Parts: sequence; structure tokens; C-alpha cells
Amino acid sequence: MALIVQKYGGTSVGDVDRIKNVAARIKARCDEGHRLAVVVSARSGVTNELIARAKTIMPFPDDREMDMLLAVGEQETIALTAMALHALGVPAVSYTGGQAGIFTDKMHTKAKIKKINARPLQQDLNAGKVVIVAGFQGINDDGHITTLGRGGSDLTAIAIAAAIKADLCEIYTDVDGVYTADPRLVKDARKLAEISYDEMLELASLGSKVMQSRSVEFAKKYGVVFEVRSSFNQNPGTIVKEEVAYMEKVVVRGVALDKNQAKVVVNNLVDKPGSAAKIFKTLADANVNVDMIVQNVGRGGVANLTFTVGRDEARKAEHALKPVLAELGGGEVTVWENVAKLSVVGVGMKTHAGVAAHLFQALASHKINIEMISTSEIKISVIIDEKRGEEATRAAHTAFALDKM
Amino acid sequence: MALIVQKYGGTSVGDVDRIKNVAARIKARCDEGHRLAVVVSARSGVTNELIARAKTIMPFPDDREMDMLLAVGEQETIALTAMALHALGVPAVSYTGGQAGIFTDKMHTKAKIKKINARPLQQDLNAGKVVIVAGFQGINDDGHITTLGRGGSDLTAIAIAAAIKADLCEIYTDVDGVYTADPRLVKDARKLAEISYDEMLELASLGSKVMQSRSVEFAKKYGVVFEVRSSFNQNPGTIVKEEVAYMEKVVVRGVALDKNQAKVVVNNLVDKPGSAAKIFKTLADANVNVDMIVQNVGRGGVANLTFTVGRDEARKAEHALKPVLAELGGGEVTVWENVAKLSVVGVGMKTHAGVAAHLFQALASHKINIEMISTSEIKISVIIDEKRGEEATRAAHTAFALDKM
Repeated sequence: MALIVQKYGGTSVGDVDRIKNVAARIKARCDEGHRLAVVVSARSGVTNELIARAKTIMPFPDDREMDMLLAVGEQETIALTAMALHALGVPAVSYTGGQAGIFTDKMHTKAKIKKINARPLQQDLNAGKVVIVAGFQGINDDGHITTLGRGGSDLTAIAIAAAIKADLCEIYTDVDGVYTADPRLVKDARKLAEISYDEMLELASLGSKVMQSRSVEFAKKYGVVFEVRSSFNQNPGTIVKEEVAYMEKVVVRGVALDKNQAKVVVNNLVDKPGSAAKIFKTLADANVNVDMIVQNVGRGGVANLTFTVGRDEARKAEHALKPVLAELGGGEVTVWENVAKLSVVGVGMKTHAGVAAHLFQALASHKINIEMISTSEIKISVIIDEKRGEEATRAAHTAFALDKM
Repeated sequence: MALIVQKYGGTSVGDVDRIKNVAARIKARCDEGHRLAVVVSARSGVTNELIARAKTIMPFPDDREMDMLLAVGEQETIALTAMALHALGVPAVSYTGGQAGIFTDKMHTKAKIKKINARPLQQDLNAGKVVIVAGFQGINDDGHITTLGRGGSDLTAIAIAAAIKADLCEIYTDVDGVYTADPRLVKDARKLAEISYDEMLELASLGSKVMQSRSVEFAKKYGVVFEVRSSFNQNPGTIVKEEVAYMEKVVVRGVALDKNQAKVVVNNLVDKPGSAAKIFKTLADANVNVDMIVQNVGRGGVANLTFTVGRDEARKAEHALKPVLAELGGGEVTVWENVAKLSVVGVGMKTHAGVAAHLFQALASHKINIEMISTSEIKISVIIDEKRGEEATRAAHTAFALDKM
């Protein structure tokens, strides 16, 4: 008999029929003898609807009131889910974030969880009830309702799992696990049975979109083992956990392609101390997130600086830099939006040499030009022409024999 | 500078434009220098929509979960109303029932307010903010969300007014006050500038539908003076307060007609001790509310018992009584649904004789037959043929010169 936390996203509880489906899945787990704490999101669409209503009143509503408003989405779902369980004869009780003892800091709309007082949940779990917790929301020390920002419901599930020392945390979503590559791009992509936190973090930050980094970081910090799986079928998903020895035998676990990339080139920058610092300070102040950076110092005291940003931030970066370059004594900015980032990820890289060479070789054999390179202990990323992105993904997938995993 | 509580019902906050209108009204009061606590209901229709969604999951959902679900209706409105005030530059902060310190008993879906901890509200009011409180909801000692049942938002407003010692409580609704009679029936009906709690209570229980009795009772108990007025115009409404000497000069303050009535006649009831007790115990057990009762003992040891009930409960009463009459040794039940109750109300009756005679004379002059009579200190009610109801209302209105008030 295990203590399990389950999380169902907005699509999984999108309407009354899907909520009934979720209740049936929960009941099945209960019938196997397990105890369950279940985290649910707002029905898909509800949050956007509420935001739209607020924006017709005011373009930039107050953050505290926004949290008050958005919290109703999950509150509706927890009540309906509890009712759906009652209809199946399963004892269940719903909890708002605040009632579940999820205490956060005061940063409305993107609050961080500070602590969880799990006593009330524990009591109901011990009494044999399924507890249904509103995802995405908490309460601060002053009793105000806060929300956790994007990916907040996953974070709620993992934090609850840590707090009640759950044996397993199941994250139900609309994909049925983590794949060696995006199955829409690579037909031979395989679902991974297991993946380490660090690999999952690299994939999350690479835009594989299964989960936000912060939830994975939280799970890693508290050692919460979780499984990503689909609420629409019974397939086993992918278990995310601390890296174990055998994982290192696999050099590369997955390939990811991120098309939301732009390359910004600053040419003829006067090469003097502090230029780069000034440029990146300007970008930080403009809230532009910089990813890869390459600098070449050329002849005649001028340098070329190249960096990548999210594509939707490229024009903002260009706009912010122009006055600064004038100040620095010269330089032109050019934005290239037709690039993509290809990454290969695997904890096994740490102990295997030649991974980068193997990737470059694979791309070379397809005559795909590499524009920028960045590496970490468990990841190699290259910037390439967006048009060749999918071909490059398939080439890397084959080169590392991921179709045979 | 006064401290004012305002309450806006579901129609007044029915959509974003109406919420903006409410915000403008609140701002106008603030600009006059007053401090405001505002209670709002769920947008009209939202509560019924949520109930319908719950019923597709389960015909009789759990009361606790129903409260969890229904509470989202007001929570949405408070956030949107606060935003609409911000848009007008008015500092405002929203409060759920629980955050506003409204503590209730544990009777989910029809909780009673036990106490209010108004400290947080007071602090925000003292800081110059408008506080927006979710009507209809509270929290019990275990931290569970409760709702107050029908008319709950009025009750919230009056209870808050008592707790913060407001100078005035304004109940905004879709009628603009209390009239001497229903203006749809009696063209000459006048709006009353003032009315006593007791008169208002009689009118509430008579189905004038402006307000539920419990809110008026609460106001009377705590001496909360309130005004019933419309959110769609600027007309002064009706002030409800403790009776004052000059009110007694007016013998009759209003005439009400209640068509939701049925007369149940039990003929040939064997007249023995305990028969009536048995009958009314049976009706109470079946949750049938009995209003007027008349008993005649005839010849031959049989009695006739006549009573009135809400029309929608008449068949339930008939159904419940049949087996009991058999047990009691005989009697037939007949239901008459074509009756109405006409009442005249006024605290002045206490000190004026002949009011009943004056009413009976007015009806007699129109050849309207009186089937049953019931009186209290400040009310006389008669049961008449429903078809003659409106004519009788006009006759009574004229007889007591209410058109000249």
C-alpha cells in the first residue's frame, strides 16, 4: 500500500465528463489499496477566460486581485472532483491551497512556496479519505491568496509529495511521457522509462514543454520521485529521479529542438573593458533572457559579439542596444530570426569523451552548418539554420542510436 | 463623513459593464468623503450555472463541497469589483468571507453567522481603502468554507454593518424601495420613506420579496439601520429602522398579496385528543410549512380542520396526510389551490381599534368573500379567492388611504 500524489492538468479536467474520468482513475488506484492526494488545475480555458474578463476592466490589473480572481478556477475543479468521487462511493474532501497549508512568499502571481503545513491533509489521508488539493495556489502569512505562476500545479503536486513523504508522485498531462525526441519530428522516438532530474532539467529549459524547470528543481532538491504520464490512456510514463549508476551507460538520452530562438549579432563593437558588461546589463534591465554568448575579437580594436535570445525578445534586445552602442562608440546590431537550437542531453556524457565530435560529424555528414556551440556537463547545444532543424534532429537521433533504446 | 456598508446583488454586478457602474457609484460616495465597505453577490446566473454543473455529476452533492463550489461565484465578483475601483483610481482590496472574519456554524449551505472578527477590515478602512467583501459566504471554526443560504449576501452586509458599527447600510437591489403595495398591482402605490423592522418582517414573510426575514431579524437584533434602494437609479430608497413614535400615527403602512398559497381542508376528522397534534407533526416531518390554521368542531364528533401552506407544498401535504387520516379513524383531505392571502401591515394597529373591521368592510363592499382570517399585533391577513386578489389589494389600499401617504 503506497501513498501516492497525483496531479491532473487543465485538459484532464476540462469538462464534467473528463472530471468523471479522472475520478474513475483515482478510484482504481484506491481499489488497489493505495492512499491518494490529488492536485488538480483549473478546467482548461477557465484561467484565460478570467484573465480576459479582468483585462476588459483594466489592462494591467493589480497582482493581488488577479490572484484572488484566478484562484477560483482551481476551487471549482476541486469541488467538482470531490463530488465525482462521492458519486463513485469514494470518500473525498477538497482543499484550497490555503486550506492545504501551502504557505508562500508575498510575490503575487509568481509566489514561491515557503513551507507546507500538511497536518490537515495527513489527518484526512489517515482517515481513509482522498484529499483533492487546488493546484497553482497558496496563501501568504497575511492570509492573502497567492498563485504560483506558470507550471504552478506541477509544483503544488511535487511540494505536497515532499511534505507528506509520498512514495510516488504521478504528473498526468496530455503527453504520455518524455521521449528521446519530439515524436512529431522523429518517427523512431522512444519513450524513456526513466530519466534523471538533471537531464529533465536540461530538457525542460530546452523547451520540451512537458514541465517547467522550477518543478523539476524542487523535486530534485527534496528527492521527490515523479512520473510523467497521460490521463487519457493507461500507458506507463517516464519516471524522473536521482541519477543512478546504470544511467551513465547511456551517453545521450534525448535530442531536443527549440525553434523559439533568435541570434543577435553585434558587429564592430569598440573593444574596450566593460563593453560586454554594459551590453548584458542593458539586456538584463530590459528583461531579455540571454542564452548562448560568443565573442570574437578581430583586428583594429573591434569585436563581434553574438548571442541568442527567445525569438519574441529579439526586437526588444535590438531596441534596447541601439542607444547603448552609440554610447560605447560604435557597433551595429543585426537580428537573425531563422535559427534553431539543437541539443543532445545525457548524464552519460560526463564519463564519455567524443560526444561533441560525434554530434558535429553527424551534422557535417548532412552538410548542416553549425553557427554557435555551447556545452554543459550533460548537454551539447548548437545553433543551426531553422530550415535544417528537423533533419538535424533526426540525424542526431540516429547517430546516438536513440531509436534502439 | 460616514462609515457606510453597501450591498450589491447579482443583477447589479451581472456583467463587466455593470461592475464598472457599481464601481462608479462607490467612487461617488468616496468622493463625498465617506468610508465604504461593500458586499457583492455572485454575477446573476453564475450560482445557478455552478449548481447545474454539480448536479450533472451527482443529483445531491455533498453540502461541504457545494459550499466550496458556490463560494467561487462571489470570489470572482470581489476581485473584478476591486479592479474596477482601481481603474477609477480608488484604493480597494477584496476579501473572501473567511478573510473578512465571518465565522459561522458548521451547517453547510445554510450556515448561521456566529461572530465577525472585523479587525482586518477596520485596518484597511482606516487606511482609506474601500473593502470589498464576498457576500453569502463565511468560514467555520475548522477553516471550511460555508455559505449562508438564500438572502445570504444581505445578511453579510447587515452583519458587517453591525460589526464595524457602520452609520448606514445600503442594500442595492433591482427594486428601489418598499412600497405601500406592489406597484404592478396598485397604480397609486407609494414608496415608503421609512418602515419599522417589524413591519418589514411581516412584509418579508408575506412574500414581498425585497428581503429575507433573517436579514431583517439580524438588523433588528443589532439595531442596524438599513436602506433598500436601486443600483440602477439615484432615487432615495426606504429606510428600515426601529419603530419611532410618529410611525404609530400611520395605522396601516402597506398591503401585500401572496398568491403562492393553497388551502388544505380536512373534513370529517374524528374529533379526539391528539388528532390535530398528529396531523401537524406529520406535516412538520414532511418539511411542510403551515401558516394559518382554523378548526371547527361540528356535530357527531367530527371536526373540520383548515390550514394554508405554500402552493408548491400542497400536494406533498395531501400525500403525507392520507395514511395518517386512515390511522386516526377517518377524514378526507381536499386541496384548494385557487386562493391568495391579502395582508395589511402597520405598527399603528397596536394602538388603533377597528382596523380589522375597516378591512372587512372594504372587502364586503366589493363583495369579496373572506375564507380565513389570521391576525398578529401589527398584521391582519385574510384568505380570499385568488381571482379577486388584485381587486382586493386595490380596495384595501384605498380604504386605508395609502395612496395619500
